[in-house]
Amino acid sequence: MHTQLTLDDIQAAHRRIAAGIYRTPLEESLYLCGERRRYFFKLESLQTVRSFKIRGALSKMTTLTAEARENGVATVSSGNHGSAVAYAAARLGIEKAVIIVPENTPQAKTDRIAFYGGEVLRLGRDYDEAHRLGMAYIEEHGLTFIDAYYEDPLIYAGQGTIALEILDQNPEIDTIVCPIGGGGLITGIAAAAKALKPDIRIIGVQTEACPAMIASLRENVFYEEYPVTGDTVCDALVGGVGKLSYELLGGLLDDIIEVKEETIRRAVKHMILNEKHIAEGGSCTTVAAVMDEPERVGGTNIALVISGGNIDAELIRKLVSE
Amino acid sequence: MHTQLTLDDIQAAHRRIAAGIYRTPLEESLYLCGERRRYFFKLESLQTVRSFKIRGALSKMTTLTAEARENGVATVSSGNHGSAVAYAAARLGIEKAVIIVPENTPQAKTDRIAFYGGEVLRLGRDYDEAHRLGMAYIEEHGLTFIDAYYEDPLIYAGQGTIALEILDQNPEIDTIVCPIGGGGLITGIAAAAKALKPDIRIIGVQTEACPAMIASLRENVFYEEYPVTGDTVCDALVGGVGKLSYELLGGLLDDIIEVKEETIRRAVKHMILNEKHIAEGGSCTTVAAVMDEPERVGGTNIALVISGGNIDAELIRKLVSE
Repeated sequence: MHTQLTLDDIQAAHRRIAAGIYRTPLEESLYLCGERRRYFFKLESLQTVRSFKIRGALSKMTTLTAEARENGVATVSSGNHGSAVAYAAARLGIEKAVIIVPENTPQAKTDRIAFYGGEVLRLGRDYDEAHRLGMAYIEEHGLTFIDAYYEDPLIYAGQGTIALEILDQNPEIDTIVCPIGGGGLITGIAAAAKALKPDIRIIGVQTEACPAMIASLRENVFYEEYPVTGDTVCDALVGGVGKLSYELLGGLLDDIIEVKEETIRRAVKHMILNEKHIAEGGSCTTVAAVMDEPERVGGTNIALVISGGNIDAELIRKLVSE
Repeated sequence: MHTQLTLDDIQAAHRRIAAGIYRTPLEESLYLCGERRRYFFKLESLQTVRSFKIRGALSKMTTLTAEARENGVATVSSGNHGSAVAYAAARLGIEKAVIIVPENTPQAKTDRIAFYGGEVLRLGRDYDEAHRLGMAYIEEHGLTFIDAYYEDPLIYAGQGTIALEILDQNPEIDTIVCPIGGGGLITGIAAAAKALKPDIRIIGVQTEACPAMIASLRENVFYEEYPVTGDTVCDALVGGVGKLSYELLGGLLDDIIEVKEETIRRAVKHMILNEKHIAEGGSCTTVAAVMDEPERVGGTNIALVISGGNIDAELIRKLVSE
């Protein structure tokens, strides 16, 4: 057992966050099916702030001391995690939530953070510099750093609450398919699901554009950073892997599949035009895995985690007319 | 008081159907807002079978005698009501559910009904003939007819359960805006909402392509049928008004707004590209009303009922590239 991420931790996180999240639907696909196979979407694309990230953020932030809440929180993220921290702070009555983003971040992204009540601070030319300067700023100003996926078990426990809901909504689920970026989501889910149902299969999916976890597990190397190759519609999945995820995931995972960007694009389009769900490219990697390799995904009652719904309007327009 | 549709009836319907429906989110719009105004979508587009129609169907079908269940049910509908009756039957263990549709109904629509377990029967050249022949068939075969919106108070009570959820999810809601086709949805909602909160405002919306209820209320004429003028993206809203709706709605409604098809098209596109929700044209009439006439819609905390999410793939493609 990994003492850093137990079922108790994840169940406790679920109790802390329940009032602040949606119990998102686990909905059967209208179109994906196979001989003796049924597929169910776990629609975190409909979650508050349109992403599972709110689960981790609330899990962490509900444990802060009165003093830490008074001083405020911060993170470095221009994406879903940034919005989630801003929203969680507003919900918990934490007045100061500084969301640090690289200087070149598009206005649409900072508008979204501001909409959820975050204070946007532009620092550094790219993500790495934003992170370095941001951590110094956070320390200097006595803010509590809210980790996105790196090593905070409270964040991982929050993401793992998705598995509790899946198995409660349909106890017959025997396979969970989950996108992997840093690995926080799948590690939390796998820890909870395997504790509740030891024979459940956990399948990870990565885009060919950035298969960091695949490389980490194959080579036994902690790729904290990893290059992106070619164009990708999976903004949320690029970059290296988390530390805790690197340590735990190998022992929890049944398979890990790399999918093509071309299939992911078709999967996004399929979700919009047929299933009538708007989901991010990174989230549709799970659908792409089923399209390309249904036998390898396997299972009888299969949950596909659709992790977020924040996809750019231009990209929607482009993909539906491809 | 209208003894045909009381708050008690609607609350009882909610208890009967709760296990078979989603409590759909009441989610604040990311983009619609105004000075001192907040807008919330009641997302029945995410409901089981992607439409509020499942509420009415389950409300009725949970009251059938063992004998009626044994004999089976039927309705005449190629749209959301047909799918809802098929799904409700499967869920309640009613083996026979005959869904009668006009002969020229597209395969995509009958596939959908079959997906939910309905037995499709093609009868008659158009809806009117399908209805006439269908009612004879239903009587001859001893099936129970499940009314879509015409006069069965159990159906209206089911649709009204949406108002119970809205006011529970946000007791501050002071205005509910709702699409009108036959009128079953808004009549149920208005009856429940006004009983719970007498000063709440109920605003109906119709498309300019078929303003049957506007004409009925203005002229005091029961338009059981009504012509369609020009092209419309609101398939679910065309046709005449329901009998019970005609009798009750005048006393419950605060205003009724006619919106342009051109605005409805923009509203569908706005929902997909910005709000990231897929909703039917008819459902987006409420968004269109806010776009064109925010002052007339009025209110401080406004719920916009998004009644369904079954929109044709070709239409999505067309609207997002307009």
